[in-house]
Amino acid sequence: MENKTYTIADYLFDRVAEAGATEIFGVPGDYNLPFLDNILDSDKLRWVGNTNELNAGYAADGYARERRFAAMVTTFGVGELSAINATAGSFAEYAPVLHIVGAPNTKLQDGKYIIHHSLGDGMFNHFMKMVEPVSVAQANITPENAASEIDRVIRMIMKKQRPGYLLLSPDVAKMAIYPPTTRLTDFEEDITSQVALADFKQTLSQFIEGKTTALIADLMVHRLGLQSQLKALVADTDIPYATLTWGKTLLNENNKRWAGVYVGNVSHPVVKDAVENSECLIKLGVAFTDTTSAGFSQRIDKEKAVDIQEERVTLAGKTFAPIAMKDALKALHEVLVSGINIVPKPLIGEVSEYQQEGGEDAALLQQDIWHIIAENLDSNSVIFAEQGTSYFGITDVRLKEGTTFYGQPLWGSIGYTLPASLGAGIASPHKRAVLLIGDGSALLTVQDLAVMIREKLNPIIILINNDGYTVERVIHGETALYNDIPKCDWQVMPRAFGANEDNSLIVKVNTPATLKSALTAAREAEDKMVFIEVMMDTLDVPPLLAEVAKILK
Amino acid sequence: MENKTYTIADYLFDRVAEAGATEIFGVPGDYNLPFLDNILDSDKLRWVGNTNELNAGYAADGYARERRFAAMVTTFGVGELSAINATAGSFAEYAPVLHIVGAPNTKLQDGKYIIHHSLGDGMFNHFMKMVEPVSVAQANITPENAASEIDRVIRMIMKKQRPGYLLLSPDVAKMAIYPPTTRLTDFEEDITSQVALADFKQTLSQFIEGKTTALIADLMVHRLGLQSQLKALVADTDIPYATLTWGKTLLNENNKRWAGVYVGNVSHPVVKDAVENSECLIKLGVAFTDTTSAGFSQRIDKEKAVDIQEERVTLAGKTFAPIAMKDALKALHEVLVSGINIVPKPLIGEVSEYQQEGGEDAALLQQDIWHIIAENLDSNSVIFAEQGTSYFGITDVRLKEGTTFYGQPLWGSIGYTLPASLGAGIASPHKRAVLLIGDGSALLTVQDLAVMIREKLNPIIILINNDGYTVERVIHGETALYNDIPKCDWQVMPRAFGANEDNSLIVKVNTPATLKSALTAAREAEDKMVFIEVMMDTLDVPPLLAEVAKILK
Repeated sequence: MENKTYTIADYLFDRVAEAGATEIFGVPGDYNLPFLDNILDSDKLRWVGNTNELNAGYAADGYARERRFAAMVTTFGVGELSAINATAGSFAEYAPVLHIVGAPNTKLQDGKYIIHHSLGDGMFNHFMKMVEPVSVAQANITPENAASEIDRVIRMIMKKQRPGYLLLSPDVAKMAIYPPTTRLTDFEEDITSQVALADFKQTLSQFIEGKTTALIADLMVHRLGLQSQLKALVADTDIPYATLTWGKTLLNENNKRWAGVYVGNVSHPVVKDAVENSECLIKLGVAFTDTTSAGFSQRIDKEKAVDIQEERVTLAGKTFAPIAMKDALKALHEVLVSGINIVPKPLIGEVSEYQQEGGEDAALLQQDIWHIIAENLDSNSVIFAEQGTSYFGITDVRLKEGTTFYGQPLWGSIGYTLPASLGAGIASPHKRAVLLIGDGSALLTVQDLAVMIREKLNPIIILINNDGYTVERVIHGETALYNDIPKCDWQVMPRAFGANEDNSLIVKVNTPATLKSALTAAREAEDKMVFIEVMMDTLDVPPLLAEVAKILK
Repeated sequence: MENKTYTIADYLFDRVAEAGATEIFGVPGDYNLPFLDNILDSDKLRWVGNTNELNAGYAADGYARERRFAAMVTTFGVGELSAINATAGSFAEYAPVLHIVGAPNTKLQDGKYIIHHSLGDGMFNHFMKMVEPVSVAQANITPENAASEIDRVIRMIMKKQRPGYLLLSPDVAKMAIYPPTTRLTDFEEDITSQVALADFKQTLSQFIEGKTTALIADLMVHRLGLQSQLKALVADTDIPYATLTWGKTLLNENNKRWAGVYVGNVSHPVVKDAVENSECLIKLGVAFTDTTSAGFSQRIDKEKAVDIQEERVTLAGKTFAPIAMKDALKALHEVLVSGINIVPKPLIGEVSEYQQEGGEDAALLQQDIWHIIAENLDSNSVIFAEQGTSYFGITDVRLKEGTTFYGQPLWGSIGYTLPASLGAGIASPHKRAVLLIGDGSALLTVQDLAVMIREKLNPIIILINNDGYTVERVIHGETALYNDIPKCDWQVMPRAFGANEDNSLIVKVNTPATLKSALTAAREAEDKMVFIEVMMDTLDVPPLLAEVAKILK
């Protein structure tokens, strides 16, 4: 290493690495170019350029879900605003992404010049204000505040697991500073009131004793990094458990205590009974949205629920706060193994064994395809399902233990999963990214296929070619032209972005038999991008979507 | 026609049509689907679906530049935020685009439900606030305010020639209302003070008499729709004239009074002398930005300038306001033909005749290619030049009379021109869209090629394949990997998006001879999309960019 001056940019990128990133996504621009050199010079970070800023934001979101931190760099105005929808999604769905934006040199800002990438009004604070509603912390880095503001914003991102924003001019970036002498994890606040916690624990012990009990977990358990704690708790008890679709794969689905995925009124009978009819329902990080609850059709009696949220617990109508979820989980675990009489809710009814509906050589049906996919994926899969037929299809079938599932049911930005699966693939090279997406959605963000190929990733991409926005057709305008998309050639598409026989396997299937053999080939082609175009009927939808759509109409 | 109820959606779309649009761009979503039906039912409007919302925004911007009004529809949150960078560009560069956003039904909003496409906090005003800095008017349409707010927002867009925003829930959209009984153009304010105007006219007559005079025009003349008025003025006088690159093609460049394009200190000597050394310089709607002035290197003595802006005139340091530009132009015209002694600034020096540098069968050079293109395009071309080598290349050569030129030098969002040229192609079917773009920029928005093909447009797309972001390489990081883009196959690319031999002509060229024959073929293939991939050296740049980059570094 040369004996270079340690700069504010170095400080920032060292903090980014400390927070857990080994890659940074983004798109270059002349207001960030000079400090991109600091990334190239860093031995802790690698630059991963995307094809546009929205795709960079989605990739960072996918990376953040795996790593609990991600960073991206864009340029002022044009770049950052192109990514702001991704940031809003990261905010809504709790993905901790730091967005670093290159700003014009401070001299130009101070002089109120009419410069490119500005609105031409000599003002440079518009865009930082625009990102406020969709981020938990923002700062304009100056020589005077660099260390404290970088640390504050990154710590806030890590704490709240939501996006933050830093604006950095190249002239500030290159100023000298000393390296950090604290750790980001120093000064972590403990918000839990021990009095509240003790009260909760005592109340819970009295409440739960002798009652039939079940547990349902959702997104926030994952986002707060408490999966291991949850799994240990479940392993030490005999109570049955469920998740929402949003929290799918938080818990092992291949177990006799697995009740299923709860989707309100359209749930399968076993899980519906377990969730709605247990005398005590332990809710962990559960949030009901319109899409995950089939239009708020959940029927859960508050008087029976132990509702553990990010910073509070509600038990039979009484609130205990502040209690951090990790502390509530620990107390819950202690109560469950304390020797008092815990009565697991009996699972009533049987989950009917899946029987393939369509013939092996007949047209593929939505009610079969997701089962076939689930059975033929390895257990190291990290599955992204687009918020169309894919999400409602795959969340309704059992996934192998070890599999990780991600969707975006609250924000629901179509096109999200393609770059997000790229980000997760880079974050977790020991896993294999699986992308389940329709043609309508894929078209929005398709150019990041080129980045997957350049990065030599090995995703399995299952593209449902059903000729347009089927998820919308079932809501409104079944055959309306606004639900059509332009005709594309999906066999040629990957080649346009750099796919060839050495780096990719591209196939088209239309029957259960051909899909199964494609998935077998995909498992064998471990070091290639596998692109499986699945021809399906325009109006065929998974059973769960058919039910949910009736309610969303 | 059926006897349907006339609704708020019908009112809105009738106003959109009245404002000058015959097409509406956008992407469907379940919060806008029901009122997209009103577009399909309209006999005045046609739906043009784009491949994503940013592309829709860019297409609407290109359409608005031709039609002086455009409209687009997206869905709440995910859709509108994906388009917000396009809206910011329309704000910065004065493109009058109405953005209609489909919102959740009011009952869901009032109930503060956690619904898809929201941040999950039960609040629904975040995104309308985010668009405020980049639009001139916003409204949330309610049954109580529908007519007045629709009219107010659209009138403001037309008046300021900048974007506006309307939020519309499907339940509001379908409510009954009566059709408009006024015209949008009723109640137009006249802001000009007749006293100020008379003072200006008198002062100008005294000031200009006997002085050598030249004229320079820029963007705002176009945006305020005053080209005909300007051309008439120029035709009635003998003074020489120039434009900035931003205002290129406002005036005929094939005329002995054409001084050239003024770019501050890096201007050609003839235009530099005319602009900087005339005793009276008439400036019409001129704004100097860093890129159009080569880093604010213009040398214009305020004491010699008659500076006519949107609502004010400054003459030798004295301001006359309020005067609308159209009134100032009229007064100027009257003074110039009033019989007083107007002395045209003599043009000093000769523009050297262009000589092709490279051999016909040698590699194509940046210093040749733009001349070759300009000479080989028909005069009905509407040219979009991307803010890379293309912009700096084409603005430095003479274009045929009748040609329309558009760039985006202030906002400078790469990828903009591809969908923008699509929008202009739809707006002006009697013109032929010409897109000049590099591979790095094209990759950001490439999927809208599919829309060009579906719409059976006939653009000539000249894609400079120079292996990455060359415009950035000349500023910083000449060979840095962040200025690389993934390897794509640009010959295959159009086919992925639906191009075939019937609808397209796809060629690759690398010499002056092959480029010229491709352009000849392009002119003949009048009803096809022509895609010419031009192989060029990674570090070769047009002479003007080389000069400007030195200053921007």
